[in-house]
Amino acid sequence: MLEGIFPPLPTPFREDGDLDLGLLRELVSRLNGACLAGYVALGSNGEAVHLDPDEAAAVVRCVRESATPGMRVIAGTGRPSTRATIEATRRAADAGAEAALVLTPSYYKAATTADALRRHFESVAAASPIPVVLYNVPANTGFNCPVEVVASLAPHPNIAGIKDSAGDAAQLAALAAMTRDAPSFEVVSGNFGTLVSGLASGAVGGILAVANVMPEACVAIHALRRRGRLDEAATLHERVLPVARAVTSRWGVPGLKAAMELRGVPCGVPRGPLLPLDPVSREELEGMLRAAGAL
Amino acid sequence: MLEGIFPPLPTPFREDGDLDLGLLRELVSRLNGACLAGYVALGSNGEAVHLDPDEAAAVVRCVRESATPGMRVIAGTGRPSTRATIEATRRAADAGAEAALVLTPSYYKAATTADALRRHFESVAAASPIPVVLYNVPANTGFNCPVEVVASLAPHPNIAGIKDSAGDAAQLAALAAMTRDAPSFEVVSGNFGTLVSGLASGAVGGILAVANVMPEACVAIHALRRRGRLDEAATLHERVLPVARAVTSRWGVPGLKAAMELRGVPCGVPRGPLLPLDPVSREELEGMLRAAGAL
Amino acid sequence: MLEGIFPPLPTPFREDGDLDLGLLRELVSRLNGACLAGYVALGSNGEAVHLDPDEAAAVVRCVRESATPGMRVIAGTGRPSTRATIEATRRAADAGAEAALVLTPSYYKAATTADALRRHFESVAAASPIPVVLYNVPANTGFNCPVEVVASLAPHPNIAGIKDSAGDAAQLAALAAMTRDAPSFEVVSGNFGTLVSGLASGAVGGILAVANVMPEACVAIHALRRRGRLDEAATLHERVLPVARAVTSRWGVPGLKAAMELRGVPCGVPRGPLLPLDPVSREELEGMLRAAGAL
Amino acid sequence: MLEGIFPPLPTPFREDGDLDLGLLRELVSRLNGACLAGYVALGSNGEAVHLDPDEAAAVVRCVRESATPGMRVIAGTGRPSTRATIEATRRAADAGAEAALVLTPSYYKAATTADALRRHFESVAAASPIPVVLYNVPANTGFNCPVEVVASLAPHPNIAGIKDSAGDAAQLAALAAMTRDAPSFEVVSGNFGTLVSGLASGAVGGILAVANVMPEACVAIHALRRRGRLDEAATLHERVLPVARAVTSRWGVPGLKAAMELRGVPCGVPRGPLLPLDPVSREELEGMLRAAGAL
Repeated sequence: MLEGIFPPLPTPFREDGDLDLGLLRELVSRLNGACLAGYVALGSNGEAVHLDPDEAAAVVRCVRESATPGMRVIAGTGRPSTRATIEATRRAADAGAEAALVLTPSYYKAATTADALRRHFESVAAASPIPVVLYNVPANTGFNCPVEVVASLAPHPNIAGIKDSAGDAAQLAALAAMTRDAPSFEVVSGNFGTLVSGLASGAVGGILAVANVMPEACVAIHALRRRGRLDEAATLHERVLPVARAVTSRWGVPGLKAAMELRGVPCGVPRGPLLPLDPVSREELEGMLRAAGAL
Repeated sequence: MLEGIFPPLPTPFREDGDLDLGLLRELVSRLNGACLAGYVALGSNGEAVHLDPDEAAAVVRCVRESATPGMRVIAGTGRPSTRATIEATRRAADAGAEAALVLTPSYYKAATTADALRRHFESVAAASPIPVVLYNVPANTGFNCPVEVVASLAPHPNIAGIKDSAGDAAQLAALAAMTRDAPSFEVVSGNFGTLVSGLASGAVGGILAVANVMPEACVAIHALRRRGRLDEAATLHERVLPVARAVTSRWGVPGLKAAMELRGVPCGVPRGPLLPLDPVSREELEGMLRAAGAL
Repeated sequence: MLEGIFPPLPTPFREDGDLDLGLLRELVSRLNGACLAGYVALGSNGEAVHLDPDEAAAVVRCVRESATPGMRVIAGTGRPSTRATIEATRRAADAGAEAALVLTPSYYKAATTADALRRHFESVAAASPIPVVLYNVPANTGFNCPVEVVASLAPHPNIAGIKDSAGDAAQLAALAAMTRDAPSFEVVSGNFGTLVSGLASGAVGGILAVANVMPEACVAIHALRRRGRLDEAATLHERVLPVARAVTSRWGVPGLKAAMELRGVPCGVPRGPLLPLDPVSREELEGMLRAAGAL
Repeated sequence: MLEGIFPPLPTPFREDGDLDLGLLRELVSRLNGACLAGYVALGSNGEAVHLDPDEAAAVVRCVRESATPGMRVIAGTGRPSTRATIEATRRAADAGAEAALVLTPSYYKAATTADALRRHFESVAAASPIPVVLYNVPANTGFNCPVEVVASLAPHPNIAGIKDSAGDAAQLAALAAMTRDAPSFEVVSGNFGTLVSGLASGAVGGILAVANVMPEACVAIHALRRRGRLDEAATLHERVLPVARAVTSRWGVPGLKAAMELRGVPCGVPRGPLLPLDPVSREELEGMLRAAGAL
């Protein structure tokens, strides 16, 4: 289910803030040729938190319709409450998603105990018509999901894996090792920095912002690694890494959208409160894309 | 607008997770006699993040209808996007809210620059039919709104104040001092620990979880302080403080709901992922309420 | 032992970085008339981490000799290892300290378990010829000592209390409440923002950076509170608070040393890596001191 | 200077807490045959913060004398003050260290500005008789050294490189990229998880706790990578990773010392406040070592 490279698609908005499904369709069709395993709609990079339920469903449907048949479509459906997460997951399934990426809840940090996390994910998995993928992204949530919680959820028949974006290679390896006995549970890296080491230690793929910007390179890294051509994989990884940092920890969504536009795949502006990337940073970003061979 | 004590009402849910407006009505009518300045519906304690837009509007309407005429009703309307915040604010105004409490956005921490914060709050204030109150609560968001940003927003004609729940007396005083020239901007404490010192340094009131549990005591502290009877205010403050900690940093919403039930004002269960308070903690809480004279 | 107001003295250094005991003597003699309960030598504000063992002993001796007889002298003696802490505590006792302020270890955060903390403080207390005061200062250590650990240590015959600088009024009250049965254990606030509420909830005094800059005001707040004149205490507290913030969370040791010099009590420069306060901030600080009536 | 694999040696202590140079000598002689590039004495894993200056010098001398001639010896010499760091660096050089590993200061977080960091490292480098290596380890210090500061220091003739233990592959790559024009500046990974990707993106080696436990494997990873046999490197990396996590983020120094003893290279106990690993964790650790082929 999760093997390969998935870009978490940015969600295009017009200057007036409206959803721009036309640009989204174009974005997907531009990416369709790149041998990606599929798409994640409505991840952190897709500004999922900035959409209402109808928009979310429209985005999933649009991605499903635009994607090459056979490519998998995963939809981010995590909401702060278990109930809303279940509702969002059902709507995403109706709209064509094949799996649901479910963010850890994090608003009530002290009360989000291991027990609360387990029951949340179990309830969602029980109610979901499609497989559930756990999603851990401490940089956004301020919360790191304990590996023990993940291990205890791994055998669940409707929990298909985890996207771990913590960026800690050892944690990623621990997740793979501790869930090895759950044959249908897959681990994927949500951080480009841990892609190659993750693939070595049992992860099956990556859900990576930079896979929007340099899809061929990300796919090549994955393919080269599988064919044992690690040297080439490592060389490519090194080339892509500065761009990966630029569109995540450095400049985030505004950086990602600016990079797409520089690449000739306009994705519109972010929704407020996010602002478009300022001109000075944009120029620096352009230099980085050029150095990486992405322009 | 913000002077006095406001409880951020818990939102009652039934065992099946449905909103229980009947219990909410009862809760408000039980609190109506307590000389509170008004109510905050849909704050962090009200599990705002667990409600959908229709439920949110229903809660505001219910609180408005149940509150004694003349009491102010403030509604939490912060959402991750500027657009959704404006929409929620308008709906809250339609439902009878007199002011909107707008949480700082926090999901994209690095990209939430001072500039982004300013534009977000200015856009909401410009579009809002009711005054906007800023809301800073680092324990939930993992993000502390810089005092300089608040100071720059204070003169805005439709920004009425800030609820600062950081629990840092010096920051609260700095907020009051740096906004003194904005005559219509008020500072309130969102943390019981900084209530008394806050009132001394220019804050005009408090929005306090414990004001649901011990409303008379909170109101008395405020009143005693205004009449110069600080000794009595301090004595009361000391008595309430352990309960305040129990229903916030210690046990959060599950603690607050358990305390209400122990006081004979049932508020139902929290929505998942939050779990009801476990029996051992509940017993400890009961002892604390008893020691504070709340039972 | 800990009742009243203690300034944690800055340690004066010359431009060449050498210890300036002459300035320290002057500083103490300037403060001697201010009805302070005593002095803390070698706290965080005293740059304890910047001194070698001989310098530390010299500072304690100098403060003891310069202080008015009858004033208490407490020395910061926390070191990363239990062994070095014991050694530093013995030397401080030899040099005339009447109590030792012992910082929580924090370098190995994950391994600093509750058990490790307990054994550390018990070992130091067992070996120390003078009473030990626990010291919790998360802003510097990145580590908050659990209240349960403090409560379990409170009955120890040679542990005299805790200085809690976390700045959380509810935690301070919890510490006082949970140690009430240990008659010789005292709680003091290490954060000016929680001084007044702390005194109300069982704390007996304060160890406060701003007590170097505005000693009379701090002493007056404490005295007014004891005589039940809380209104005046609160008014004074409000006046001092901006200065307290300036010399702690805002500008730290460089701010404290600049404030002392502006007040006519030069304390030299900080030791590197700390730099003297820059001229722009210094001017802003001067305005704050003037507004607070400290100039 | 920094190319290859260096273990940051644990410092052996006897049950009574005294330094055990005999065990240290044995440890080094056991490691001498493993084709390591050299040793780091007195890193975080060496409990540098638990030693006094004479002990520190003795440890460096002992390592220098026990190491095979030609192996490099690097000594941790960071202290909270610039002055003490310079003094420690000179003593380490006298004792035979060929380079000094200098930790970022971190006690006064707010006052540790970019400017303060730059002047600190420049002063140390100017006064040091041996090359200086910067050391960034946020897990211990609660402080991440900005890449821009590192880049500005890289051209300094007596600053030889950085050990970055942040565990963020993208930051490591950014450090390598931003210092590429400083020909004598080398980047090494201080986190096993980022070793392989770091080597690909310009890092020249690793200073790794697990290199004490599985030195041959670490050396082999480095060598295989250089000879282009990345597949084998990745396979080995995967095998070692769980052990690397066990002796760092999971159990820290107590875990490292327990692992050494299980491997038949006793390193004594940690100094208080650290406690020896508890028996249950020790058993789990033994299983991990066995699974990794280290027993």
